[in-house]
Parts: sequence; C-alpha cells; structure tokens
Amino acid sequence: MKAITFASTNQSKFYEVESILAAKGIRAEFARLNLVEIQTDSLEQIAIEKARSAYALLQRPIIVEDDGLFVSALFGFPGQYSSYVFKTIGNDGILKLLEGKEDRSASFRSLVAYSDDGSNIHLFEGRVAGTISIKIAQGGWGYDPIFVPEGVSLTFAELKSMKNGYSHRKNALEKFAEWLAKDKI
Amino acid sequence: MKAITFASTNQSKFYEVESILAAKGIRAEFARLNLVEIQTDSLEQIAIEKARSAYALLQRPIIVEDDGLFVSALFGFPGQYSSYVFKTIGNDGILKLLEGKEDRSASFRSLVAYSDDGSNIHLFEGRVAGTISIKIAQGGWGYDPIFVPEGVSLTFAELKSMKNGYSHRKNALEKFAEWLAKDKI
Repeated sequence: MKAITFASTNQSKFYEVESILAAKGIRAEFARLNLVEIQTDSLEQIAIEKARSAYALLQRPIIVEDDGLFVSALFGFPGQYSSYVFKTIGNDGILKLLEGKEDRSASFRSLVAYSDDGSNIHLFEGRVAGTISIKIAQGGWGYDPIFVPEGVSLTFAELKSMKNGYSHRKNALEKFAEWLAKDKI
Repeated sequence: MKAITFASTNQSKFYEVESILAAKGIRAEFARLNLVEIQTDSLEQIAIEKARSAYALLQRPIIVEDDGLFVSALFGFPGQYSSYVFKTIGNDGILKLLEGKEDRSASFRSLVAYSDDGSNIHLFEGRVAGTISIKIAQGGWGYDPIFVPEGVSLTFAELKSMKNGYSHRKNALEKFAEWLAKDKI
C-alpha cells in the first residue's frame, strides 16, 4: 500500500483524509505541522506555498489540503480565511451576516497540493455547491453544521458519514488518488 | 530633510503617513508594492515579513505599516484580516455582527516596521481604544466611519483632519520618527 504524509494542524481533517484515501489504496500518515499561510485572494497560492514548506520540512512525498467556504451574498467571505473567521465569529457570525438576505447560496472549495520533490506541486480541486442553513445543526466541525450541499436537505454535520458522498474534500482527494495511481505507480 | 520610502498598496494610507512624518521633519516617498502578507495571529509577524520583502525589492530604507481593528465581542475579529473583511462584509457586516451585543469596545492597532538593511527590523506600535458606532458615518475610508476613539463622540471619519490627534497610526509613526531622530541622524 502506497503511503503519503498529510501535513496539517487539524486532526479531524486528517481522519477524513485517511478514510477517503484508504478506500483508494493509499495509506495516509499524519504530520502535525503548523505551516505558514499567506494572505492572498487565491486558495491556489496558499496551497502551493504550504506544500513547498511541508516538503522542505519533511523531505518526503506530502499532501496538504486547504479549503474554504465561499458565501455568495458575502462576496466570497469567509473564503481563504475560513479558519480564522471560524475561530472568531464562528457559525453564529455567518448566520447573523446572512439575516435578511435572500441569497443563501455558498460553495465549499478544497485544494489538495501534492509534491514529491518540493519544486513540482500538483493541484487537485474539489467543489461542492450548496446553501447556508437557517439554524446551526448539532455535531460536526467547522462550517459543517451550517452547510447544506445541493440535492439534500441536511447539513454536512447531519449527514455524518454520508458527508463524504458530497464532500469537496473527497472530490479533490479522489482526483489526486486517481492521478497518483495512473501516473506514479 | 530625511527621506524614507513607504511601501504599500494603499495610497490613502500614504497621504496620512506623509502628513504625520512631514510634521516630524521626515519626507515620505510612496512605493506601490503589493507585499505578501502571511496568515498569522500576530500583526508583528506580518509587519516583519512585509518589511523584509519591501527592503529586498527596493534596497533602501523603508517603512511598512500594518493595522487592524480588534473588536472585543468578536474575539478580536477582524484583526489582522481587517482589509479582507472590509472588502467582503465591510462596515455593514461589523455592525450586523454586533447587533444585540452590549460590549461594543474595540481597539485599533498599528505597527510600523522600519529597516535600512533588510535584516534588522525595528517595530513601533500605536494603539487607540474606542467603541464601534451604531451607524456608519459619512466619509472616511476603511473602518473610520464606524470607529469612535475614547474621549470623543465622533467617528474617525467625522473627525476628519482631527483624526490624527487620536490615531493609532500617528502614534506608531511618531514613535518611529522620534527613534529615527535620536538614533539614526
């Protein structure tokens, strides 16, 4: 079984990544790294820089993942700053900002960046469209309790293990796994 | 008259800097540079990295300035991400997030970073305490129309040219100017 190191500070994210990649025959290891993220309007740039630093530190094939919730009526906010916004104003804040707005559409984007030499970075994107719920659901982490993917009426948090059926992160990781299977083994 | 290059993307900010430094006998020149800002909880780290990159590009004595509005009831939000937050949810968003909250206290912090060799970075901090207004005032830029400094009942925007009497940015720049006058000339 091929092994890959997933570098992140977020263990909950790692568990998701691990289960998605295992189903594709890839064993994920966890490296807890607090990688510098740059402030930019582009999720791509953040992922590329993080992959570079992770490789520089670990010197083995790595993936990093970066995702963001982009709310249409808020001009893409919280976007690439989703973790900071979550830690401060949180889901309550997002719901408050959407009070009285008709358009509750949003999308979750995930970018997986892979490198096995530190200079070539390969990017894989996943995206899921949906809406922001009216109330915060129980359970889940991050924005999962307020994001309802298109085609269902439950939030990511309520979908629990079924979440991966819709997830932007799963989508990006599967693209990566397929590319790895085809081009690298 | 001593000259210094102020590196920023923000011309409005430059005009403030120019007038504050002129009063201290320093002529400021403007270099429009789009410097990379890192994502971190520390305004200090952002300013240091920006000063390094500005010096690397310009190779002459430079200052950069970074500021943020820290709202107590929002756990410091928007803080170091103030410009991004302003561009997306704006002042409307901040007021919305504070609806129903009793504590409207906030502070504005400014960090000026100076370097004349690219490796030693000198930091100067200014801070002003205040509150977030109930309504958005006319005029001003950024968060000026919603920030009321302690001791007055007008927003930064309404204070117009008197703003500099209270400003965190002025405070930081004056510390810098005094240090420069004493240690460097």
